[in-house]
Amino acid sequence: MVNATLPSSGEICVDAANDEAFRRLDTADPWVVDVAPAGAVLPGYHDRLVLTSGAPMPWHAYTGGQREALIGGALFEGLAGTRDEAIRAFAAGDIEIGSCHDYGAVGSLAGIYTASMPVFVVENRSHGNIGYCNFYEGKEPRRLNYGCYDAGVHERLLHVNTTLAPVVGEAIRRLGGVALKPVIARALRMGDEVHSRNAAASVLFTREILPAVLDMVADGVPGVRETMLHLAENDYFFLRLSMAAAKASADAMVVPGSTLVSAMAFSCRGFAIKLAGLGDRWFEGPPPIHEGKLFAGHTEDEITWMGGESPITETVGLGGFAQACAPSLQDYQGGSPEVMIERNRQMYRIVHGDNGHYRIPLFEFRGTPTGIDARKVLATNVLPVMDVGLAGRDGGQIGAGIIRAPRACFEAAMAAHHARFGAS
Amino acid sequence: MVNATLPSSGEICVDAANDEAFRRLDTADPWVVDVAPAGAVLPGYHDRLVLTSGAPMPWHAYTGGQREALIGGALFEGLAGTRDEAIRAFAAGDIEIGSCHDYGAVGSLAGIYTASMPVFVVENRSHGNIGYCNFYEGKEPRRLNYGCYDAGVHERLLHVNTTLAPVVGEAIRRLGGVALKPVIARALRMGDEVHSRNAAASVLFTREILPAVLDMVADGVPGVRETMLHLAENDYFFLRLSMAAAKASADAMVVPGSTLVSAMAFSCRGFAIKLAGLGDRWFEGPPPIHEGKLFAGHTEDEITWMGGESPITETVGLGGFAQACAPSLQDYQGGSPEVMIERNRQMYRIVHGDNGHYRIPLFEFRGTPTGIDARKVLATNVLPVMDVGLAGRDGGQIGAGIIRAPRACFEAAMAAHHARFGAS
Repeated sequence: MVNATLPSSGEICVDAANDEAFRRLDTADPWVVDVAPAGAVLPGYHDRLVLTSGAPMPWHAYTGGQREALIGGALFEGLAGTRDEAIRAFAAGDIEIGSCHDYGAVGSLAGIYTASMPVFVVENRSHGNIGYCNFYEGKEPRRLNYGCYDAGVHERLLHVNTTLAPVVGEAIRRLGGVALKPVIARALRMGDEVHSRNAAASVLFTREILPAVLDMVADGVPGVRETMLHLAENDYFFLRLSMAAAKASADAMVVPGSTLVSAMAFSCRGFAIKLAGLGDRWFEGPPPIHEGKLFAGHTEDEITWMGGESPITETVGLGGFAQACAPSLQDYQGGSPEVMIERNRQMYRIVHGDNGHYRIPLFEFRGTPTGIDARKVLATNVLPVMDVGLAGRDGGQIGAGIIRAPRACFEAAMAAHHARFGAS
Repeated sequence: MVNATLPSSGEICVDAANDEAFRRLDTADPWVVDVAPAGAVLPGYHDRLVLTSGAPMPWHAYTGGQREALIGGALFEGLAGTRDEAIRAFAAGDIEIGSCHDYGAVGSLAGIYTASMPVFVVENRSHGNIGYCNFYEGKEPRRLNYGCYDAGVHERLLHVNTTLAPVVGEAIRRLGGVALKPVIARALRMGDEVHSRNAAASVLFTREILPAVLDMVADGVPGVRETMLHLAENDYFFLRLSMAAAKASADAMVVPGSTLVSAMAFSCRGFAIKLAGLGDRWFEGPPPIHEGKLFAGHTEDEITWMGGESPITETVGLGGFAQACAPSLQDYQGGSPEVMIERNRQMYRIVHGDNGHYRIPLFEFRGTPTGIDARKVLATNVLPVMDVGLAGRDGGQIGAGIIRAPRACFEAAMAAHHARFGAS
């Protein structure tokens, strides 16, 4: 079905569309303005809805850790009393499953959202749209978004809901919002690529909210000390802000005819991308190609896919597209500085341009490669690189590494583009 | 005069002495444990003493900005009512001039200390010795340590004495001290070399004292908010902690016969070094060789030397010896990432070993080149590189860049070493 508002084939100039999509991405101005429960702010959310990562699928298609994570979400939210009850409710459609991206949100790994979970509300002040992401659960390898649900996971999620989120939310509101682009740009000068490394961004964000936090302590607001110490210990705290900022930035890219990638995500079944010129359609392929480093005691055959939408950061020119900012990552995800630098350079071959704000000190402050052009991916056969955490088949994080988006997604996307707009 | 406690010529094994000096440097464990007025804690301090950077000189040898800084120090401390009175008092010896290093301290640029100025007290817990450094005056280019003294400089110094130092001191005491080596090691992974770039270390230090700070706010301690916001805005705050930590570490290196450098400093007259094997003697040479980048509106001929002891950081394997950690510095002090990396690699040719704690992510976490060996400097003619701020002849900071220690210092030092210990 052809969208009636789009120009018909032959009228489209792909290069001009890409220029405009890139311009919107590059001028995005994401501010975190609030923290609120998903159920209260995500458009169209309802109490019996659980969101998860990747292109939408029916219940029976969810397997392994991602299926476990959905069940865990239902139990955490009290939508079912037992595991079996949850399974029956999902199968019967009494609990609905949604795709995060369809609700303006992005999910980390399995990417579970339930109604009570607090989300960062990130407003793109150049474009007026909003992106969301929920909170990091903490360092413990057993986390709901890695397919685990037990008493400890439950307790940590509840602690986010009742203590961390209210405090961080109040600080953000007292400040009238915090501009995220300057924090991210600065973190790139401080060894982060703001996907798998957020050590600088997390401490810089803490510093941003400090004036409000000090006032809150003076005013006797409860939980502030505990929250600030939690932030101090959790170098990944900022990832969720980075993801929400990236989502709010990438959602502004929609321009008919553009061949730039506006989203990348995966589920337990496979990888998928969206093009800025083709609206909300997903173009699916097999699971990503990976190369990683495992935590001690784990083996390669344990690696499993249970979803992930943090590649929204690569979509806006961060993460794998800014790896040369973060040589320390070699410690966490393997590889050598030389390989990381070379991989980062390679990404310039498949993008529309250099980022005007996110810059790489090691490349003499050249802007990060930004705006993946599906045409260039097919022409060069250079596949987009992403930094990710690796999940184990028994749940939990077992390592980290890089993945590559499969070529099939770009083939499917460009076939649809040709069908819609003709040869470009 | 031969020190009676030192073994006589022929009994010394220089390599073994260097191993021991390096070991002491590498195992140093500097903790900031207090903040107190210089007059109260620096050994041998008295009320009419003003300290300054570099090997000791008589009053008439101080010229230009360093002379102005001494006069400014006397006026700030109320040791003289007017400029002329101060000059007469210095000339008559009514105000005494001391060399910072002789009092366990190190000075930034002109390095002025007066009795009321608060200093960080840094204890080397492996060795029991203490190093000191006073506070950063703030971002304003006109600062006492850059040879300026006026109402604004006076006010900012007073603000350090009355607000910033008491708050930071109380936070440090409440915590029972803060270990500096982990902060420095971590900052090296976050784009600092902890001499001319301290952006990460400053925010990490803020995070270290946060638990105490939050308690102090709850307890109604005055000045906390103001102090924390000052810290948040001043990326150079940590430099003085880095310098005090380096001084406390380097002072433990004294081992008879060692040819490792235990201090580097300069005055308006020239550069000077100490050797770990020759105690407190300075070996002087001409001013350093420089290469820099000037702030807009300034020219090369304005550059002047008014002292500097921050090269104590290079003495312990930081700053110029960790430049490859800090590609962002190119913005501030010129050069390219390639040049910085190459310069950093070059330093391995003149040192005793690789640092066991301070590591360079870009070199696959190789330890920073540490323990400058005067023999190797002469043999290779590779001169130690340092990152420094550049002062203008009319006072104030006018740029930043790198300097090289002059060969003459190493020739003088090794001549004295040969005279004392024989050919090595």
